[in-house]
Amino acid sequence: MIPGDHEKAVAVSFAELWESLLPVGRDAETGGYRRYSWTPADLACRDWFNAAAARRGLRTECDRNGNLWAWWAGPARAGDLPGPDGAEPSAGPASLPAGAIVTGSHLDSVPDGGAFDGPLGIISAFAAVDLLRSQGFVPARPIAVAAFTEEEGARFGVACLGSRLATGAIEPGTARELRDGRGVSLAEAMTSSGLDPGRIGPDDDLLAGLAAYVELHIEQGSALAGLGAPVGIAEGIWPHGRWRLEFTGRADHAGTTRIADRRDPMLPYAAAVLAARQAAVDRGGLATFGKIVVEPGGANAICSAVRAWLDARAPDEATVGLIVDEVSAAAQAAALDQRVGFGLRRESFTPLVSFDAALRDRIGQVLADAGGGGGAPGSAAGKSSVPVLPTGAGHDAGILAARLPTAMLFVRNRSGVSHSPAEHAEPADCEAGVAALAAVLADLAGS
Amino acid sequence: MIPGDHEKAVAVSFAELWESLLPVGRDAETGGYRRYSWTPADLACRDWFNAAAARRGLRTECDRNGNLWAWWAGPARAGDLPGPDGAEPSAGPASLPAGAIVTGSHLDSVPDGGAFDGPLGIISAFAAVDLLRSQGFVPARPIAVAAFTEEEGARFGVACLGSRLATGAIEPGTARELRDGRGVSLAEAMTSSGLDPGRIGPDDDLLAGLAAYVELHIEQGSALAGLGAPVGIAEGIWPHGRWRLEFTGRADHAGTTRIADRRDPMLPYAAAVLAARQAAVDRGGLATFGKIVVEPGGANAICSAVRAWLDARAPDEATVGLIVDEVSAAAQAAALDQRVGFGLRRESFTPLVSFDAALRDRIGQVLADAGGGGGAPGSAAGKSSVPVLPTGAGHDAGILAARLPTAMLFVRNRSGVSHSPAEHAEPADCEAGVAALAAVLADLAGS
Repeated sequence: MIPGDHEKAVAVSFAELWESLLPVGRDAETGGYRRYSWTPADLACRDWFNAAAARRGLRTECDRNGNLWAWWAGPARAGDLPGPDGAEPSAGPASLPAGAIVTGSHLDSVPDGGAFDGPLGIISAFAAVDLLRSQGFVPARPIAVAAFTEEEGARFGVACLGSRLATGAIEPGTARELRDGRGVSLAEAMTSSGLDPGRIGPDDDLLAGLAAYVELHIEQGSALAGLGAPVGIAEGIWPHGRWRLEFTGRADHAGTTRIADRRDPMLPYAAAVLAARQAAVDRGGLATFGKIVVEPGGANAICSAVRAWLDARAPDEATVGLIVDEVSAAAQAAALDQRVGFGLRRESFTPLVSFDAALRDRIGQVLADAGGGGGAPGSAAGKSSVPVLPTGAGHDAGILAARLPTAMLFVRNRSGVSHSPAEHAEPADCEAGVAALAAVLADLAGS
Repeated sequence: MIPGDHEKAVAVSFAELWESLLPVGRDAETGGYRRYSWTPADLACRDWFNAAAARRGLRTECDRNGNLWAWWAGPARAGDLPGPDGAEPSAGPASLPAGAIVTGSHLDSVPDGGAFDGPLGIISAFAAVDLLRSQGFVPARPIAVAAFTEEEGARFGVACLGSRLATGAIEPGTARELRDGRGVSLAEAMTSSGLDPGRIGPDDDLLAGLAAYVELHIEQGSALAGLGAPVGIAEGIWPHGRWRLEFTGRADHAGTTRIADRRDPMLPYAAAVLAARQAAVDRGGLATFGKIVVEPGGANAICSAVRAWLDARAPDEATVGLIVDEVSAAAQAAALDQRVGFGLRRESFTPLVSFDAALRDRIGQVLADAGGGGGAPGSAAGKSSVPVLPTGAGHDAGILAARLPTAMLFVRNRSGVSHSPAEHAEPADCEAGVAALAAVLADLAGS
């Protein structure tokens, strides 16, 4: 039962956290965010995280992969943590291993991203801690708020970099040599931020101390809006990946080089763009070219090289493979036709993620008991089921799912727009998200 | 008659000039040049020009549009210059008005351009001055070496900016507001280089003092190589222009936005690229997309906007119009199909230029008398005609042609590659170019 005072406190706590982060890394012209890992904007976000945690008396930690942790009791380490009340975890589908309950998300952004994707999960986590405390809740397990490094892959090209490193889903040596658009390596960027890149890599000790991860995120589509629900639960994440296509032609003068003499890589690139859309439509998946680098990039010069990134997703891995194969074949054929070199390299891939079914059911039950995540738990609405949705978007929760039970809560996004300054969730829906997250944490970390 | 000593002197003078300019603005990674107007690389090129002129005792001047002049006698100003020997210009097709004979080209480059496009004309001009002096030549008219500002349009988007300003082919107010990729205006760039942008614009007094302009340039194709000739004469310049296409969609998440909900501007852009090639083939012209700006440019974000530049050229203006119309229609249809906004704006256009026929014939005669531009004038080869070629490339000579007799000499480019670090002319061909230019200057500025 949350009385009205608690609701008001949530609104104030949420608004204060929200307003203080809002200006950080926001581009004055586009209104979008440019919070790329280890840049000044990202460091300012990290300072914000540490300050928010400190104000709440939460102990902070930056792990060796640059992920931030704010501990309410803990941090947990394998071996020194009992289950709830010191007992072994109870049996049954809803039981959890010993260890901490983690919630959080990420603070970095895509280029000109919105304010919600990532930060909503962290702000909601701190606000949920505030709400639980105001309710007099005492956790039987440690609770942590986490902020993972470079979830968007906007600077170094690998999405969920921080959680991939921690779980061993990317080789530390490979990660150290990832380079941004200006040629700066991850190792250099971390060093200049005072971290030791020699220490990055699998963090089994940390992971062994965690019982579950629940990530709250703005919905990146409009399914909840269609269903009239402010909060939903993730079913799973479509398999998805990123492929780099490189077309290598020959720079030449646009005004003097005969058509027959040209080796223009822009033509097979254009063919690949159209083939990607066709393959996505034919196969019932998604395929997108949103990033392209052209060399030399002069208006009166035939370009020497086009590098472009294909993002492909589908309900199953075989379909993703078919889409990529069809785009690759079309690009290859068009490149051959133009005497242009062509190469394709997979930069990242995340297999199908089905979130832990027992955890999902347990969360669904908690939210149904609390009124469907649609307002104050225990309200007149009483029990009502919460929508369960698949998603095409990758998240740290998807990476961590390989190592511990994970789940996600989605907050309604009325426009459905994402990765854009137009992304938006209503304040009432954000508050419903905080209330839902608090109820879930109370259940999972409660006595 | 040039004895062997003169030939050797030309080679030394040319090599010294060449070597001293070679490292300026060269990118260490690509080996290409990035000499954009009013950047440090461009200012270093200007210092080089002034130093080369000073060593030769040529008086330098930076006109109010930023074009550089190095005067051997003069500078000429309207009203105070007689014709040759103080007489009125003689009648007949080869006669010239009173005033100076100007030769030169430009020092700026396309992104990752070659070493020859532009600089060859200026280095050859200084070397020709050296050669004429070593021959004891005394000009009856002033001779000037000119370096025009931003011929390539690589920074502010308008090709031949310096000559357009001087001849009134672009409004000074429009030019002042041109902006580079970072939003810096031409006015700001000129101010920070110590020039007064309030003074840019038509320079009738300067132009009225000029009798003819002869620009030497590396050939941007392989016609001379096919003909076995080291030097050729330009017939004219194809009409050509640059159009900016803007596709406006909606930024969205690549992994969660259904195909049906997308407004992806990359798709109509791709259709425009393929339509441009088809139109060029169908119409016997040239059409190129070599520059594209994508916003926001994230690999996992559907882009919100694509801006791209179409370069179109053809033997006549009607054909250029047809090509642009066909690209525009295809882009418009594809944009409509994707619910994407589309706009097209002409950024620059240069009508068909036929170089002054009388001047062209006179130069042809001089070079034929000197042995076809194939080596030392007066060599055993005797008279031989010099190839006359059309070109699809714009040049300051094409802009100045609207105001005074102009001509161009081309130097053989064995690979035919241009606007690329691979652009190359053999030293012997460069020396033949200097000898040909010196012979032309001696004729036009001689007593």
